[in-house]
Formats: sequence, C-alpha cells, structure tokens
Amino acid sequence: MHNSLVKQPHAVVLLSGGLDSSTVLAMAAEQGFTPYALSFQYGQRHAHELLAAEVIARSLHAVKHVVATIDLREFGGSALTADIDVPKGRSAEHMAQGIPVTYVPARNTVFLSFALAWAETLDASDIFIGVNALDYSGYPDCRPEYIAAYEAMANLATKAGVQGSQKLKIHSPLISLSKAQIILEGIRLGVDYSQTSSCYDPGQDGKPCQACDSCTLRAKGFAEAGVQDPLYLKHGIG
Amino acid sequence: MHNSLVKQPHAVVLLSGGLDSSTVLAMAAEQGFTPYALSFQYGQRHAHELLAAEVIARSLHAVKHVVATIDLREFGGSALTADIDVPKGRSAEHMAQGIPVTYVPARNTVFLSFALAWAETLDASDIFIGVNALDYSGYPDCRPEYIAAYEAMANLATKAGVQGSQKLKIHSPLISLSKAQIILEGIRLGVDYSQTSSCYDPGQDGKPCQACDSCTLRAKGFAEAGVQDPLYLKHGIG
Repeated sequence: MHNSLVKQPHAVVLLSGGLDSSTVLAMAAEQGFTPYALSFQYGQRHAHELLAAEVIARSLHAVKHVVATIDLREFGGSALTADIDVPKGRSAEHMAQGIPVTYVPARNTVFLSFALAWAETLDASDIFIGVNALDYSGYPDCRPEYIAAYEAMANLATKAGVQGSQKLKIHSPLISLSKAQIILEGIRLGVDYSQTSSCYDPGQDGKPCQACDSCTLRAKGFAEAGVQDPLYLKHGIG
Repeated sequence: MHNSLVKQPHAVVLLSGGLDSSTVLAMAAEQGFTPYALSFQYGQRHAHELLAAEVIARSLHAVKHVVATIDLREFGGSALTADIDVPKGRSAEHMAQGIPVTYVPARNTVFLSFALAWAETLDASDIFIGVNALDYSGYPDCRPEYIAAYEAMANLATKAGVQGSQKLKIHSPLISLSKAQIILEGIRLGVDYSQTSSCYDPGQDGKPCQACDSCTLRAKGFAEAGVQDPLYLKHGIG
C-alpha cells in the first residue's frame, strides 16, 4: 500500500547539474520531501551543466524545475563568469590551499536567497544545498558555520520566521562527506551519474576536460569509491 | 585645500529610487564613502522607480549605477510583482498591523546578496540599505535583528571574512528614524525629492496615486516635517 494521500512537505533543492547537487536531490526525495529543483543561468561558461540539470531533475522526479537567470558578470571577479583561464592540472592537495580563482563572489549567498524566496511562496521550510567542506575547503561559503549563519538569518527574514509558524532549515547533507562517500550514496539511491556534468570547461558534447579542478576531484572520488564513472564510459574515456 | 589624494572607501548603496534609499545615498557620500548604486529590475509593476533611481544616482554623484535584472515573478507571492491589487486608502495605523500584501518574499535578502557580490569584487566592506523599522514594521526583513544576522552571515560568506582582512558592515542609517526625520536629513544633504518616486501604482508620468500605503506614509512624513513635497508640486498636486 502506498500512502500518496499523506501530504509530503515541499523542499527547494539547489541543482547545478553536477554530481553533488544531483545526489542531494535524490537524498531530499528519499527523506520524504517533494523536491522543487532550482538552477541558475548566471553567465557561467559551462552552460552544459544546465542541460544536465534539466535531465537530472526529470529523472529524479522533481515536481518542478526552475532556471532563474541572474547575471553576476556585471560584478566581475571569477574564472567561472569572467575571462580568466580555468586552472588545469592541479592536484587535490594543491587546490585545497587558499581560495580558488574559480570562486564566484557571494554565489551561494545569492543562490540560497533565491531558494529562500521560492521556499516562502511554496510554503516550504526546507532548502537543500550540496556544499561540501572537504573538497572545497577554499570556498568560504561551503563551511558549516556559514550554513548555520545563513539559516539563522533566514529565520529572521521571512514571514514564517516572524510568525513563528515554522522554522526554516538549510540542509547540507554532503557537508562532511568525501567525494567517494557521496558517489556511493548516490549509486545506492539510483542517481545516474552519466547524466551529470562536473567539468568547468567541457567540450561541446559535454565531454569532460579531465584536467580542471572539478574533473580531478570527480576522478579521485570515483577511484576511491572503486567505481567506474559512467560519464567517462559514455564519452569513451577509459 | 581638497584632499582628493586620500582614497575614499567604496560602498555599495541599494537604491530603489524612492525617498528612503535616495536619502541613504546622500548619507553614504556624506560619511566619506565613494558610492556605487545598485538597483533591481525585478518584475515590479512600478518601473517608474528605476527611472527615478537613474536620475538620483546621477544627481547625488554615484560613481556607477548598475541595474541588475532578476525575476522573482517565477516564484510569485506579492502585489508588487504579481497580479494582486495594491491596497489603497489604508491609514498608517492600519498598515502597521501584520505583514502587508505588498511584501516581496525574501526581497531584501536577495538584494543584499547581490550587493554583497558586488562589494566583494569592488573590495568594498560597506553596504548601505534604507530599511526602516518604524513605518514598515510589518516587513520581517526591515528589522534591526534581521540586519545584524545578515551581517554576521556575510562575514562568513566572503573571502575577506575568511582572510580576516576586513569586516563587512551593513549600514541601515534610517532604521529607527521617522519619515519626517528622514526627510529633514535628506533636505539638509541636498536631496531633491522631486526626483524620487515612492508610489506603488503611479501614473505613466510618475504622478503618485496618493492612496497606496507608500503614498500615505510619504504624505504623512512631509506633513510632520512641515515641508511641502516637491514631487507633489511638480505634478501640480496641492
């Protein structure tokens, strides 16, 4: 017997189309939330991610997928949105030092703020974000203390917070997982990683460059998990 | 002797084109900041505000004025962006009760997040916002505790915060002023209020409706300040 008559709580899930956020979408659904997926067209060079997000949102049964357009290019400041070269060939140890050039100013703050606006209109009190404090230690807005501070702010920002009717929760279920752990969890939940896109600088067909920081971390994760990356198989990469 | 060789700190000033934010722009300049004005095209019905913001930014010597386009309409939920009627003819006492229908979900959080992104790329550690806790007591994101929580979050979100090189400050100089006090301060600083636009539902020429909440608060403020509203004079309103 299924219990489709029980109303599931809504949740807004930030979905880039990458490995991490796709896993989070599957986790939100498994935890009993009805997921609303939110992606951004923000002038990033790797628009292939958005195509991946669309496919993943459909295959993991998001009720709705909104792509919000924002333009951080007016403010400049990062390799992902400006004309600075994406660094290639760095080791995981190298990238763990300092703040990477691919850091987008205030990006998670902007993304979470849109998620908060949508959550409020959906009457949802749950937002999911795939930040990870291990692989991305260089990003200030991927740390647990940042997420906690955002949640505290959000609970003062909204009608629900003022009326005390519900407490808004920012879920970051990946925050202390290794990439290998994330991959194994996603496989358990049926995420098809061949549909995801992680590369900062993919080919036109979405073929990963195998040299940027994101490709390096992904390859290391699959190696440590002892699993072949289905995206590599799809593109005929050994 | 002028001291143009002394580098003034940059500040991002949120500028709607209304009375409050225009006054804040003048205050930021008086406090010695070089102001960068930030407005939003967010699907609001009163686009006349943006024309006012452009005129005010120029007349109060903002170094740069960016209008960022965001679309909160995808999320719905407010009279200012959706097709709900703007309430008319309410007294100031009436509007102080509860959260108004013109509340835009998470609006100040979204606006401050863009300001934070720009501040970070400008290497600015100061953001000005014209929120007011007296006239807009119904808005959760106009309260001092909200601004304090936003500032705490912002200091964990950015490179500067992590590196400890500078502390980000959210200035809300109007937060405990009455509308009359704001107007008198603006007049002292040379703000030309005939250039500002406050009405939620103005005519095509920017003529205020004289009936919406914003018009009511503005008229009350000018009356209490004992000053004629130059915007009314411009439009031939006695």
